[in-house]
Amino acid sequence: MRYAGPIQSLIDELRRLPGIGERSARRLAFHLLAQPEEDVLRLADALAAAKRDVGECSSCCDLTDTDPCRICRDPSRDASIICVVEGPQDLLAIERTSEYRGLYLVLHGALSPMRGIGPESLRLGKLIERVQAGGVREVIAATNPNVEGEATALYLGKLLNPMGLAVTRVAQGLPAGTSLDHVDEVTMSRALSGRRPA
Amino acid sequence: MRYAGPIQSLIDELRRLPGIGERSARRLAFHLLAQPEEDVLRLADALAAAKRDVGECSSCCDLTDTDPCRICRDPSRDASIICVVEGPQDLLAIERTSEYRGLYLVLHGALSPMRGIGPESLRLGKLIERVQAGGVREVIAATNPNVEGEATALYLGKLLNPMGLAVTRVAQGLPAGTSLDHVDEVTMSRALSGRRPA
Repeated sequence: MRYAGPIQSLIDELRRLPGIGERSARRLAFHLLAQPEEDVLRLADALAAAKRDVGECSSCCDLTDTDPCRICRDPSRDASIICVVEGPQDLLAIERTSEYRGLYLVLHGALSPMRGIGPESLRLGKLIERVQAGGVREVIAATNPNVEGEATALYLGKLLNPMGLAVTRVAQGLPAGTSLDHVDEVTMSRALSGRRPA
Repeated sequence: MRYAGPIQSLIDELRRLPGIGERSARRLAFHLLAQPEEDVLRLADALAAAKRDVGECSSCCDLTDTDPCRICRDPSRDASIICVVEGPQDLLAIERTSEYRGLYLVLHGALSPMRGIGPESLRLGKLIERVQAGGVREVIAATNPNVEGEATALYLGKLLNPMGLAVTRVAQGLPAGTSLDHVDEVTMSRALSGRRPA
């Protein structure tokens, strides 16, 4: 037996979300059906509005509701450094430190031959365009410290070094506040090989 | 730094869902923003449609898009037995066995003084109405095997026994396919005290 039509449709749609299985989708659907109508409609409206009003910045490709985005149109930012990240959430992780004052380029992915993601799937054209326009002295590859992120960082080096540009990579090592016996082997080995004068 | 307005609104709305924290809400929001517009609008529409088209059956209080619901208007069901469950999902759990041929009453909750849920919050009026209309010979208390469910089952007995009605309780014991050393003490103790001839 299936649920009544509109309930089943809602469950089916919720199931398409990442990390939401059959059971979670049912739980969410019945939770929503028990909420006041205005709360549910506010969620429905937020979905439609976000999809309607949010697009990519024509300069850095971050998701934004204004073009250029807030960072790209901020004259106090240093336009000579571009930090390349895989996704909009990575950009925010860097912004939260309040230490980086350069600009960004959001790739919307990382190279992954396994998943069929080649350079043409990433926003590399926009990066090259900005580098060729001049004034850029450094590109920081702040892609994730995993296979795809490393491959992407290597690719950025091969792409931009011939253009006379310094490509740097964010440091890898022990995360703050951890203890050595909680760290995995790869992290520990990178922390060792990346050691610096104390 | 916060996200662009429409993104933040979506994250805020997603965060109100049960089991969705700040990080999950962000992940869901960015996933949705990366999906084709028609997929996101289909979810938004499913939310609005479910809330608009689904209501409680005027007889059993189950959530339904027709009134009476499919079960209540099925002439092959045995109207002399009412199975009382806490929520619509519990009803489905029983329907999935394909063994129960009686009708239902969905309470939409269970007694919980701790959470301020008294008898007046449940759909007990509808149950009494149906019992008083006659033709009911048994009420099965299929509330959950926890404190609130047990209290609700006890309450059902006190309420309906004076009306000359048999109130039964679903059996508790070992779940199928488990092994004894994986079963908690309460379940084991209920399995022992509920033992029957082999």
